[in-house]
Amino acid sequence: MQREMDFFYFIGSTYSYLSVVRAQALADQAGIVLRWRPFSVRTLMREQNNVPFATKPVKMQYMWRDIERRAARFGIAFAGIAPYPVDSSELANHVATLAAGEGWCMAFTQAAYRAWFLDKQDPGSPQTLRSILTALGRNADACLAQASDARIRQAYEASTDQARQLGLFGSPTFVVGREVFWGDDRLEDAIDWCKSH
Amino acid sequence: MQREMDFFYFIGSTYSYLSVVRAQALADQAGIVLRWRPFSVRTLMREQNNVPFATKPVKMQYMWRDIERRAARFGIAFAGIAPYPVDSSELANHVATLAAGEGWCMAFTQAAYRAWFLDKQDPGSPQTLRSILTALGRNADACLAQASDARIRQAYEASTDQARQLGLFGSPTFVVGREVFWGDDRLEDAIDWCKSH
Repeated sequence: MQREMDFFYFIGSTYSYLSVVRAQALADQAGIVLRWRPFSVRTLMREQNNVPFATKPVKMQYMWRDIERRAARFGIAFAGIAPYPVDSSELANHVATLAAGEGWCMAFTQAAYRAWFLDKQDPGSPQTLRSILTALGRNADACLAQASDARIRQAYEASTDQARQLGLFGSPTFVVGREVFWGDDRLEDAIDWCKSH
Repeated sequence: MQREMDFFYFIGSTYSYLSVVRAQALADQAGIVLRWRPFSVRTLMREQNNVPFATKPVKMQYMWRDIERRAARFGIAFAGIAPYPVDSSELANHVATLAAGEGWCMAFTQAAYRAWFLDKQDPGSPQTLRSILTALGRNADACLAQASDARIRQAYEASTDQARQLGLFGSPTFVVGREVFWGDDRLEDAIDWCKSH
């Protein structure tokens, strides 16, 4: 039986950048099918009164420095502090949900993070999304229209609800069965768990 | 020149258990002098409105499971959920401050965490502290009296203030020069940084 792991993430989560770049290669090496699962961690954080950075300048300053160091450790490009918060209407996450249903979620999400972290754009702005979609060979207007459909919103809410049921509270989170691993720094633990259980 | 690293921690921080058990051996292997620095992360968290678990049951439940898995990964004893919060008057941390000045801080802190995590006692209770101190060959009454001295409280506040100046917001935190690494999961990063800078 093929081993599988869910990769729950939210375009708007800073630390998820590291996993968006790293996770697929690690899963591939381990022979694990990685399911890219955009979800609204913002909704769950609001429900749980969990505000990691916005009201905590000391912790926020550390977070950027930590991501910079971790990116260097992994050989991942980093261009300094990126805009934050982003994707206020969660449109980028809706497009990712559309992409997940059609098999181009990884390519889209990696492009969205490049736009955010390297080009310092808000990945949720329609203009940025149009550029990304066009570069991926997609019909940008059609994708943006579909991403706003009730069908996609419902799929996004269903993923968010599944995350809620699993006890998720942050992004990125890796899930193997009902075993939950939060944070890019638990990616290797999640892979190991998936291989050995 | 001897390489040095500060290990800021608070007896009362759950994740610090892993570092209290792991950090010294890793530092020794790397030829790094590890300075054990008890400080009041509680004070800094209050100032920064940073409440990691007390008001967040979903995150708290995950935290215990994560510590259990990490302990298993490192071969560290774990006996299930321990009392939380503990050391309400920070007496155990005052004793640790006394011990830091006298060269027995690691032994005391490890014993305090064993009492907390394995025997499920509040390490801040005078009775538990007396047992720990006696087992370490210390005069328990004398230590508890000294730990309540203004001198020790001032030393503890000075460490807390240094942590504040460095931008600390959690425990454990490793500091190399002005470079800050938060979390047991950054211990290896901190060691590597210390070796290469």
